[in-house]
Amino acid sequence: MFDIIVKFFDRDPLRRSGRIVASSDRAGVGTSEKRTRWSVGRTRRDTQRERTRAALVSAAQRMLADGRTAASVQEVTRMADVGHGSFYNHFATKDALFTAAIEEALEDWARLRDAAVGGIDDPALAFATSFRMTGRLQRRHPDLVRVLLSAGASILVSERGLRADAKADIARGIDSGQFSIPDAESGLMLTGGILLGLLQMLDADPRSDAEAAADEMAQRALMALGVTEVEASEMARSALPPFPDLVVSHN
Amino acid sequence: MFDIIVKFFDRDPLRRSGRIVASSDRAGVGTSEKRTRWSVGRTRRDTQRERTRAALVSAAQRMLADGRTAASVQEVTRMADVGHGSFYNHFATKDALFTAAIEEALEDWARLRDAAVGGIDDPALAFATSFRMTGRLQRRHPDLVRVLLSAGASILVSERGLRADAKADIARGIDSGQFSIPDAESGLMLTGGILLGLLQMLDADPRSDAEAAADEMAQRALMALGVTEVEASEMARSALPPFPDLVVSHN
Repeated sequence: MFDIIVKFFDRDPLRRSGRIVASSDRAGVGTSEKRTRWSVGRTRRDTQRERTRAALVSAAQRMLADGRTAASVQEVTRMADVGHGSFYNHFATKDALFTAAIEEALEDWARLRDAAVGGIDDPALAFATSFRMTGRLQRRHPDLVRVLLSAGASILVSERGLRADAKADIARGIDSGQFSIPDAESGLMLTGGILLGLLQMLDADPRSDAEAAADEMAQRALMALGVTEVEASEMARSALPPFPDLVVSHN
Repeated sequence: MFDIIVKFFDRDPLRRSGRIVASSDRAGVGTSEKRTRWSVGRTRRDTQRERTRAALVSAAQRMLADGRTAASVQEVTRMADVGHGSFYNHFATKDALFTAAIEEALEDWARLRDAAVGGIDDPALAFATSFRMTGRLQRRHPDLVRVLLSAGASILVSERGLRADAKADIARGIDSGQFSIPDAESGLMLTGGILLGLLQMLDADPRSDAEAAADEMAQRALMALGVTEVEASEMARSALPPFPDLVVSHN
Protein backbone atom coordinates (compact mmCIF):
# COMPACT_ATOMS: atom_id res chain seq x y z
CA MET A 1 0.00 0.00 0.00
CA PHE A 2 2.67 2.49 0.88
CA ASP A 3 5.97 0.95 0.14
CA ILE A 4 8.07 4.06 0.43
CA ILE A 5 11.05 4.11 -1.86
CA VAL A 6 13.55 6.76 -0.93
CA LYS A 7 15.34 7.68 -4.11
CA PHE A 8 18.93 8.10 -3.06
CA PHE A 9 20.45 5.86 -5.66
CA ASP A 10 23.93 7.22 -5.18
CA ARG A 11 23.81 6.10 -1.56
CA ASP A 12 22.96 2.60 -2.57
CA PRO A 13 25.75 0.51 -4.09
CA LEU A 14 23.46 -2.43 -4.83
CA ARG A 15 21.12 -0.25 -6.85
CA ARG A 16 23.99 1.38 -8.70
CA SER A 17 25.50 -1.98 -9.59
CA GLY A 18 22.27 -2.83 -11.39
CA ARG A 19 21.54 -5.88 -9.30
CA ILE A 20 18.17 -4.46 -8.33
CA VAL A 21 15.85 -3.57 -11.14
CA ALA A 22 12.29 -3.36 -9.90
CA SER A 23 11.58 0.05 -8.41
CA SER A 24 8.87 -1.45 -6.21
CA ASP A 25 11.36 -3.85 -4.67
CA ARG A 26 11.72 -3.18 -0.94
CA ALA A 27 15.16 -4.74 -0.97
CA GLY A 28 16.79 -1.62 -2.34
CA VAL A 29 15.64 0.61 0.48
CA GLY A 30 15.93 -1.67 3.49
CA THR A 31 18.62 -1.77 6.10
CA SER A 32 21.90 -3.22 4.92
CA GLU A 33 20.99 -6.45 6.72
CA LYS A 34 17.77 -6.66 4.73
CA ARG A 35 19.58 -5.83 1.54
CA THR A 36 21.93 -8.69 2.06
CA ARG A 37 19.21 -11.13 2.97
CA TRP A 38 16.88 -10.24 0.14
CA SER A 39 18.92 -9.26 -2.81
CA VAL A 40 21.99 -11.44 -2.91
CA GLY A 41 21.38 -14.73 -4.64
CA ARG A 42 17.60 -14.70 -4.42
CA THR A 43 15.68 -17.05 -6.67
CA ARG A 44 12.48 -16.52 -8.63
CA ARG A 45 10.67 -18.52 -5.97
CA ASP A 46 11.98 -16.23 -3.23
CA THR A 47 10.71 -13.26 -5.22
CA GLN A 48 7.23 -14.76 -5.55
CA ARG A 49 7.16 -15.60 -1.87
CA GLU A 50 8.23 -12.09 -0.98
CA ARG A 51 5.52 -10.60 -3.21
CA THR A 52 2.84 -12.61 -1.46
CA ARG A 53 4.09 -11.49 1.92
CA ALA A 54 4.24 -7.85 0.79
CA ALA A 55 0.66 -8.05 -0.51
CA LEU A 56 -0.54 -9.44 2.84
CA VAL A 57 1.30 -6.73 4.80
CA SER A 58 -0.05 -4.05 2.48
CA ALA A 59 -3.63 -5.30 2.93
CA ALA A 60 -3.18 -5.35 6.71
CA GLN A 61 -1.88 -1.77 6.64
CA ARG A 62 -4.94 -0.67 4.68
CA MET A 63 -7.18 -2.39 7.25
CA LEU A 64 -5.32 -0.80 10.17
CA ALA A 65 -5.67 2.64 8.57
CA ASP A 66 -9.42 2.03 8.24
CA GLY A 67 -9.75 0.64 11.77
CA ARG A 68 -10.90 -2.76 10.40
CA THR A 69 -8.77 -5.01 12.61
CA ALA A 70 -11.72 -7.33 13.24
CA ALA A 71 -11.47 -8.59 9.63
CA SER A 72 -11.01 -12.33 9.12
CA VAL A 73 -7.97 -14.01 7.56
CA GLN A 74 -10.16 -14.71 4.54
CA GLU A 75 -10.96 -11.02 4.11
CA VAL A 76 -7.25 -10.22 4.35
CA THR A 77 -6.26 -12.76 1.69
CA ARG A 78 -9.09 -11.57 -0.56
CA MET A 79 -7.95 -7.95 -0.26
CA ALA A 80 -4.34 -9.00 -0.86
CA ASP A 81 -5.46 -11.08 -3.86
CA VAL A 82 -3.50 -14.13 -2.72
CA GLY A 83 -4.63 -17.69 -2.01
CA HIS A 84 -6.21 -18.26 1.39
CA GLY A 85 -3.77 -21.06 2.27
CA SER A 86 -0.71 -18.96 1.49
CA PHE A 87 -1.43 -16.83 4.55
CA TYR A 88 -0.06 -19.48 6.91
CA ASN A 89 3.17 -19.82 4.94
CA HIS A 90 3.98 -16.32 6.21
CA PHE A 91 2.13 -15.66 9.47
CA ALA A 92 1.02 -17.94 12.30
CA THR A 93 -1.90 -15.70 13.26
CA LYS A 94 -3.74 -12.58 12.16
CA ASP A 95 -2.19 -10.72 15.11
CA ALA A 96 1.28 -11.60 13.83
CA LEU A 97 0.38 -10.08 10.47
CA PHE A 98 -0.90 -6.85 12.03
CA THR A 99 2.24 -6.61 14.16
CA ALA A 100 4.39 -6.99 11.04
CA ALA A 101 2.28 -4.34 9.27
CA ILE A 102 2.93 -1.84 12.07
CA GLU A 103 6.62 -2.70 12.27
CA GLU A 104 7.09 -2.19 8.54
CA ALA A 105 5.29 1.19 8.71
CA LEU A 106 7.69 2.15 11.51
CA GLU A 107 10.62 1.13 9.31
CA ASP A 108 9.31 3.21 6.39
CA TRP A 109 9.13 6.14 8.77
CA ALA A 110 12.70 5.58 9.98
CA ARG A 111 13.99 5.47 6.39
CA LEU A 112 12.31 8.80 5.70
CA ARG A 113 14.01 10.30 8.74
CA ASP A 114 17.43 9.01 7.70
CA ALA A 115 17.04 10.55 4.27
CA ALA A 116 15.85 13.88 5.70
CA VAL A 117 18.31 14.52 8.53
CA GLY A 118 21.29 12.42 7.48
CA GLY A 119 23.71 15.34 7.16
CA ILE A 120 22.79 17.40 10.26
CA ASP A 121 25.34 17.33 13.08
CA ASP A 122 23.71 19.58 15.71
CA PRO A 123 21.55 17.23 17.82
CA ALA A 124 18.82 19.78 18.65
CA LEU A 125 18.55 20.78 15.00
CA ALA A 126 18.51 17.14 13.86
CA PHE A 127 15.73 16.46 16.37
CA ALA A 128 13.69 19.50 15.26
CA THR A 129 14.13 18.68 11.58
CA SER A 130 13.07 15.06 12.03
CA PHE A 131 10.03 16.20 14.03
CA ARG A 132 8.95 18.81 11.48
CA MET A 133 9.38 16.42 8.55
CA THR A 134 7.23 13.82 10.31
CA GLY A 135 4.43 16.36 10.72
CA ARG A 136 4.62 17.06 6.99
CA LEU A 137 4.61 13.31 6.33
CA GLN A 138 1.07 13.13 7.74
CA ARG A 139 -0.30 15.23 4.90
CA ARG A 140 1.65 13.31 2.24
CA HIS A 141 0.95 9.82 3.56
CA PRO A 142 -2.06 9.97 5.91
CA ASP A 143 -2.60 6.20 5.65
CA LEU A 144 0.92 5.41 6.78
CA VAL A 145 0.47 7.73 9.75
CA ARG A 146 -2.92 6.23 10.55
CA VAL A 147 -1.30 2.80 10.84
CA LEU A 148 1.03 4.26 13.46
CA LEU A 149 -1.82 6.01 15.31
CA SER A 150 -3.85 2.79 15.35
CA ALA A 151 -1.01 1.07 17.20
CA GLY A 152 -1.39 3.52 20.06
CA ALA A 153 1.19 4.72 22.51
CA SER A 154 2.92 1.33 22.44
CA ILE A 155 4.82 2.34 19.29
CA LEU A 156 6.79 4.67 21.58
CA VAL A 157 8.44 1.62 23.12
CA SER A 158 8.85 -0.39 19.90
CA GLU A 159 12.45 -1.16 19.05
CA ARG A 160 11.57 -0.77 15.37
CA GLY A 161 11.32 2.55 13.63
CA LEU A 162 13.10 5.74 14.60
CA ARG A 163 13.22 5.17 18.36
CA ALA A 164 16.95 4.39 18.46
CA ASP A 165 17.97 7.34 16.25
CA ALA A 166 15.71 9.82 18.07
CA LYS A 167 17.01 8.64 21.43
CA ALA A 168 20.59 9.06 20.23
CA ASP A 169 19.81 12.66 19.13
CA ILE A 170 18.39 13.41 22.58
CA ALA A 171 21.33 11.81 24.37
CA ARG A 172 23.74 13.93 22.32
CA GLY A 173 21.70 17.04 23.14
CA ILE A 174 21.98 16.22 26.86
CA ASP A 175 25.74 15.71 26.51
CA SER A 176 26.16 19.01 24.66
CA GLY A 177 24.18 20.86 27.37
CA GLN A 178 21.42 21.90 24.93
CA PHE A 179 18.78 19.80 26.73
CA SER A 180 18.10 19.87 30.48
CA ILE A 181 15.98 16.70 30.61
CA PRO A 182 17.67 14.29 33.05
CA ASP A 183 17.75 11.20 30.82
CA ALA A 184 17.31 10.30 27.16
CA GLU A 185 14.55 7.74 27.74
CA SER A 186 12.30 10.33 29.43
CA GLY A 187 13.13 12.79 26.65
CA LEU A 188 12.14 10.22 24.07
CA MET A 189 8.77 9.43 25.69
CA LEU A 190 8.13 13.15 26.25
CA THR A 191 8.75 14.17 22.66
CA GLY A 192 7.37 10.96 21.17
CA GLY A 193 4.13 11.70 23.01
CA ILE A 194 4.07 15.24 21.60
CA LEU A 195 4.60 13.80 18.12
CA LEU A 196 1.63 11.43 18.59
CA GLY A 197 -0.47 14.38 19.75
CA LEU A 198 0.53 16.36 16.65
CA LEU A 199 -0.18 13.47 14.26
CA GLN A 200 -3.56 12.80 15.88
CA MET A 201 -4.45 16.51 15.68
CA LEU A 202 -3.54 16.64 11.97
CA ASP A 203 -5.42 13.41 11.27
CA ALA A 204 -8.53 14.77 13.00
CA ASP A 205 -8.49 18.04 11.03
CA PRO A 206 -7.34 17.37 7.45
CA ARG A 207 -7.72 20.99 6.37
CA SER A 208 -5.56 22.63 9.03
CA ASP A 209 -2.14 24.12 8.23
CA ALA A 210 0.07 21.09 8.88
CA GLU A 211 3.38 22.89 8.35
CA ALA A 212 2.55 25.63 10.86
CA ALA A 213 1.26 23.07 13.37
CA ALA A 214 4.33 20.84 12.99
CA ASP A 215 6.67 23.80 13.47
CA GLU A 216 4.78 25.05 16.54
CA MET A 217 4.82 21.57 18.11
CA ALA A 218 8.54 21.14 17.28
CA GLN A 219 9.20 24.42 19.11
CA ARG A 220 7.18 23.20 22.12
CA ALA A 221 9.03 19.87 22.13
CA LEU A 222 12.37 21.71 22.20
CA MET A 223 11.09 23.90 25.07
CA ALA A 224 10.03 20.78 26.96
CA LEU A 225 13.56 19.42 26.55
CA GLY A 226 14.92 22.65 28.04
CA VAL A 227 15.70 24.93 25.07
CA THR A 228 14.66 28.56 25.64
CA GLU A 229 11.53 29.79 23.88
CA VAL A 230 13.46 32.20 21.62
CA GLU A 231 16.03 29.61 20.53
CA ALA A 232 13.37 26.93 20.11
CA SER A 233 11.27 29.22 17.93
CA GLU A 234 14.23 30.02 15.68
CA MET A 235 15.27 26.40 15.35
CA ALA A 236 11.71 25.29 14.52
CA ARG A 237 11.37 27.88 11.74
CA SER A 238 14.77 27.46 10.07
CA ALA A 239 15.00 26.33 6.45
CA LEU A 240 14.28 22.63 5.96
CA PRO A 241 16.18 20.26 3.68
CA PRO A 242 14.20 19.25 0.59
CA PHE A 243 11.55 16.64 1.34
CA PRO A 244 12.97 13.27 0.29
CA ASP A 245 11.83 12.24 -3.15
CA LEU A 246 9.44 9.45 -2.33
CA VAL A 247 7.77 6.95 -4.59
CA VAL A 248 4.81 5.41 -2.83
CA SER A 249 3.64 2.29 -4.55
CA HIS A 250 0.05 1.40 -3.75
CA ASN A 251 0.31 -2.25 -4.61
CA MET B 1 -13.53 -4.54 36.90
CA PHE B 2 -12.53 -1.08 37.97
CA ASP B 3 -15.65 0.76 38.75
CA ILE B 4 -14.08 3.68 40.53
CA ILE B 5 -16.20 5.10 43.29
CA VAL B 6 -15.01 8.49 44.43
CA LYS B 7 -16.06 8.79 48.01
CA PHE B 8 -17.16 12.38 48.32
CA PHE B 9 -20.52 11.66 49.85
CA ASP B 10 -21.00 15.20 51.09
CA ARG B 11 -20.76 16.44 47.50
CA ASP B 12 -23.53 14.17 46.42
CA PRO B 13 -27.04 15.14 47.49
CA LEU B 14 -28.57 11.95 46.10
CA ARG B 15 -26.24 9.78 48.14
CA ARG B 16 -26.85 11.80 51.29
CA SER B 17 -30.58 11.58 50.81
CA GLY B 18 -30.26 7.82 51.04
CA ARG B 19 -31.75 7.13 47.67
CA ILE B 20 -28.63 5.28 46.58
CA VAL B 21 -27.65 2.35 48.70
CA ALA B 22 -25.37 0.01 46.78
CA SER B 23 -21.77 1.19 46.95
CA SER B 24 -20.99 -0.65 43.74
CA ASP B 25 -23.72 1.29 41.97
CA ARG B 26 -22.26 3.47 39.25
CA ALA B 27 -25.27 5.76 39.46
CA GLY B 28 -23.92 7.52 42.51
CA VAL B 29 -20.73 8.62 40.86
CA GLY B 30 -21.86 9.54 37.37
CA THR B 31 -22.46 12.93 35.92
CA SER B 32 -25.62 14.62 37.11
CA GLU B 33 -27.29 13.58 33.88
CA LYS B 34 -26.44 9.95 34.54
CA ARG B 35 -27.53 10.29 38.14
CA THR B 36 -30.93 11.53 37.05
CA ARG B 37 -31.32 8.90 34.43
CA TRP B 38 -30.25 5.98 36.55
CA SER B 39 -31.33 6.68 40.06
CA VAL B 40 -34.66 8.41 40.00
CA GLY B 41 -37.56 6.01 39.83
CA ARG B 42 -35.58 3.00 38.63
CA THR B 43 -37.18 -0.39 38.93
CA ARG B 44 -35.69 -3.74 39.94
CA ARG B 45 -35.70 -4.70 36.27
CA ASP B 46 -33.70 -1.58 35.39
CA THR B 47 -31.19 -2.53 38.06
CA GLN B 48 -30.79 -6.06 36.68
CA ARG B 49 -30.42 -4.71 33.17
CA GLU B 50 -27.81 -2.23 34.33
CA ARG B 51 -25.88 -4.98 36.14
CA THR B 52 -25.69 -7.04 32.96
CA ARG B 53 -24.44 -4.08 30.99
CA ALA B 54 -21.83 -3.25 33.66
CA ALA B 55 -20.59 -6.85 33.64
CA LEU B 56 -20.18 -6.75 29.85
CA VAL B 57 -18.32 -3.43 29.97
CA SER B 58 -16.11 -4.71 32.76
CA ALA B 59 -15.23 -7.86 30.79
CA ALA B 60 -14.42 -5.75 27.73
CA GLN B 61 -12.15 -3.52 29.81
CA ARG B 62 -10.29 -6.57 31.07
CA MET B 63 -9.86 -7.79 27.48
CA LEU B 64 -8.65 -4.38 26.30
CA ALA B 65 -6.12 -4.27 29.12
CA ASP B 66 -4.84 -7.68 28.04
CA GLY B 67 -4.82 -6.77 24.34
CA ARG B 68 -7.41 -9.48 23.56
CA THR B 69 -9.71 -7.46 21.31
CA ALA B 70 -9.98 -10.34 18.86
CA ALA B 71 -12.14 -12.25 21.39
CA SER B 72 -15.59 -13.39 20.24
CA VAL B 73 -18.91 -12.17 21.64
CA GLN B 74 -19.25 -15.61 23.22
CA GLU B 75 -15.93 -15.22 25.05
CA VAL B 76 -17.06 -11.81 26.29
CA THR B 77 -20.39 -13.08 27.65
CA ARG B 78 -18.65 -16.06 29.26
CA MET B 79 -16.15 -13.77 30.99
CA ALA B 80 -18.98 -11.43 32.07
CA ASP B 81 -20.97 -14.44 33.30
CA VAL B 82 -24.14 -13.34 31.51
CA GLY B 83 -26.31 -15.13 28.93
CA HIS B 84 -25.02 -15.04 25.37
CA GLY B 85 -28.29 -13.58 24.03
CA SER B 86 -28.31 -10.72 26.54
CA PHE B 87 -25.33 -9.16 24.75
CA TYR B 88 -27.50 -7.84 21.93
CA ASN B 89 -29.94 -6.21 24.35
CA HIS B 90 -27.13 -3.80 25.13
CA PHE B 91 -24.76 -3.57 22.19
CA ALA B 92 -25.26 -3.91 18.43
CA THR B 93 -21.71 -5.11 17.82
CA LYS B 94 -18.55 -6.07 19.65
CA ASP B 95 -16.95 -2.82 18.49
CA ALA B 96 -19.77 -0.86 20.16
CA LEU B 97 -19.02 -2.66 23.42
CA PHE B 98 -15.29 -1.90 23.22
CA THR B 99 -16.04 1.74 22.45
CA ALA B 100 -18.30 1.92 25.51
CA ALA B 101 -15.59 0.26 27.62
CA ILE B 102 -13.07 2.93 26.60
CA GLU B 103 -15.55 5.77 27.10
CA GLU B 104 -16.40 4.58 30.60
CA ALA B 105 -12.71 4.32 31.49
CA LEU B 106 -12.31 7.92 30.26
CA GLU B 107 -15.21 8.96 32.49
CA ASP B 108 -13.70 7.22 35.51
CA TRP B 109 -10.52 9.15 34.82
CA ALA B 110 -12.41 12.46 34.56
CA ARG B 111 -14.15 11.82 37.88
CA LEU B 112 -10.80 11.22 39.53
CA ARG B 113 -9.56 14.52 38.17
CA ASP B 114 -12.60 16.41 39.43
CA ALA B 115 -12.11 14.99 42.89
CA ALA B 116 -8.39 15.79 42.90
CA VAL B 117 -8.28 19.35 41.56
CA GLY B 118 -11.78 20.60 42.34
CA GLY B 119 -10.68 23.38 44.66
CA ILE B 120 -7.65 24.75 42.76
CA ASP B 121 -8.17 28.16 41.11
CA ASP B 122 -4.76 28.78 39.50
CA PRO B 123 -5.00 27.22 36.01
CA ALA B 124 -1.32 26.23 35.72
CA LEU B 125 -1.42 24.62 39.16
CA ALA B 126 -4.72 22.85 38.40
CA PHE B 127 -3.17 21.51 35.19
CA ALA B 128 0.01 20.35 36.95
CA THR B 129 -1.95 18.70 39.77
CA SER B 130 -4.25 16.84 37.40
CA PHE B 131 -1.25 15.66 35.38
CA ARG B 132 0.70 14.46 38.43
CA MET B 133 -2.32 12.64 39.87
CA THR B 134 -2.87 10.85 36.58
CA GLY B 135 0.70 9.58 36.62
CA ARG B 136 0.12 8.23 40.13
CA LEU B 137 -3.12 6.66 38.93
CA GLN B 138 -1.12 4.38 36.64
CA ARG B 139 0.46 2.59 39.61
CA ARG B 140 -2.84 2.31 41.49
CA HIS B 141 -4.96 1.20 38.56
CA PRO B 142 -2.68 -0.11 35.80
CA ASP B 143 -5.56 -1.94 34.10
CA LEU B 144 -7.64 1.22 33.81
CA VAL B 145 -4.66 3.01 32.28
CA ARG B 146 -3.99 0.09 29.94
CA VAL B 147 -7.52 0.43 28.57
CA LEU B 148 -6.73 4.05 27.73
CA LEU B 149 -3.37 3.16 26.17
CA SER B 150 -4.99 0.44 24.05
CA ALA B 151 -7.29 3.05 22.53
CA GLY B 152 -4.29 4.89 21.15
CA ALA B 153 -3.86 8.56 20.40
CA SER B 154 -7.51 8.83 19.38
CA ILE B 155 -8.52 9.26 23.03
CA LEU B 156 -6.93 12.71 22.77
CA VAL B 157 -9.80 13.78 20.53
CA SER B 158 -12.58 11.93 22.39
CA GLU B 159 -15.24 14.23 23.76
CA ARG B 160 -15.55 11.93 26.77
CA GLY B 161 -13.15 12.03 29.68
CA LEU B 162 -11.19 15.01 30.89
CA ARG B 163 -10.63 16.66 27.53
CA ALA B 164 -13.07 19.52 28.16
CA ASP B 165 -11.79 20.30 31.66
CA ALA B 166 -8.13 20.11 30.67
CA LYS B 167 -8.76 22.35 27.67
CA ALA B 168 -10.52 24.88 29.91
CA ASP B 169 -7.51 24.91 32.29
CA ILE B 170 -5.19 25.59 29.35
CA ALA B 171 -7.45 28.33 27.95
CA ARG B 172 -7.49 30.05 31.34
CA GLY B 173 -3.68 29.77 31.52
CA ILE B 174 -3.42 31.47 28.11
CA ASP B 175 -5.80 34.24 29.26
CA SER B 176 -3.84 34.79 32.45
CA GLY B 177 -0.57 35.05 30.49
CA GLN B 178 0.96 31.98 32.21
CA PHE B 179 1.03 29.97 28.97
CA SER B 180 2.51 31.19 25.68
CA ILE B 181 1.00 28.46 23.49
CA PRO B 182 -1.12 30.18 20.80
CA ASP B 183 -4.34 28.19 21.24
CA ALA B 184 -5.91 25.82 23.76
CA GLU B 185 -6.47 22.98 21.28
CA SER B 186 -2.75 22.78 20.43
CA GLY B 187 -1.96 22.98 24.13
CA LEU B 188 -4.30 20.09 24.82
CA MET B 189 -2.83 17.84 22.12
CA LEU B 190 0.70 18.80 23.22
CA THR B 191 0.20 17.96 26.87
CA GLY B 192 -2.18 15.07 26.23
CA GLY B 193 0.55 13.53 24.08
CA ILE B 194 3.09 13.99 26.89
CA LEU B 195 0.63 12.32 29.28
CA LEU B 196 0.31 9.32 26.93
CA GLY B 197 4.09 9.13 26.73
CA LEU B 198 4.33 9.14 30.54
CA LEU B 199 1.64 6.48 30.99
CA GLN B 200 3.24 4.25 28.34
CA MET B 201 6.65 4.67 30.00
CA LEU B 202 5.24 3.71 33.41
CA ASP B 203 3.32 0.78 31.95
CA ALA B 204 6.47 -0.52 30.25
CA ASP B 205 8.56 -0.32 33.43
CA PRO B 206 6.42 -1.28 36.44
CA ARG B 207 9.26 -0.88 38.93
CA SER B 208 10.30 2.68 38.08
CA ASP B 209 9.58 5.59 40.44
CA ALA B 210 6.21 6.72 39.12
CA GLU B 211 5.90 9.78 41.36
CA ALA B 212 9.27 11.18 40.29
CA ALA B 213 8.54 10.43 36.63
CA ALA B 214 5.07 12.03 36.79
CA ASP B 215 6.48 15.17 38.45
CA GLU B 216 9.32 15.46 35.92
CA MET B 217 6.90 15.07 32.99
CA ALA B 218 4.48 17.60 34.55
CA GLN B 219 7.36 20.06 34.73
CA ARG B 220 8.24 19.42 31.08
CA ALA B 221 4.59 19.84 30.05
CA LEU B 222 4.46 23.23 31.81
CA MET B 223 7.73 24.24 30.08
CA ALA B 224 6.24 23.22 26.71
CA LEU B 225 3.26 25.48 27.44
CA GLY B 226 5.64 28.37 28.10
CA VAL B 227 6.29 28.35 31.87
CA THR B 228 9.95 28.97 32.80
CA GLU B 229 11.99 25.98 33.93
CA VAL B 230 12.35 27.31 37.51
CA GLU B 231 8.65 28.05 37.94
CA ALA B 232 7.65 24.78 36.28
CA SER B 233 9.94 22.80 38.57
CA GLU B 234 8.48 24.44 41.68
CA MET B 235 4.91 23.94 40.56
CA ALA B 236 5.52 20.28 39.71
CA ARG B 237 7.02 19.56 43.15
CA SER B 238 4.50 21.43 45.31
CA ALA B 239 2.41 19.54 47.88
CA LEU B 240 -0.39 17.49 46.34
CA PRO B 241 -3.92 17.21 47.70
CA PRO B 242 -4.65 13.80 49.22
CA PHE B 243 -5.27 11.12 46.60
CA PRO B 244 -9.03 10.69 46.29
CA ASP B 245 -10.32 7.80 48.34
CA LEU B 246 -11.20 5.29 45.67
CA VAL B 247 -13.09 2.06 45.94
CA VAL B 248 -12.30 -0.09 42.94
CA SER B 249 -14.76 -2.91 42.56
CA HIS B 250 -13.42 -5.77 40.51
CA ASN B 251 -16.78 -7.24 39.60
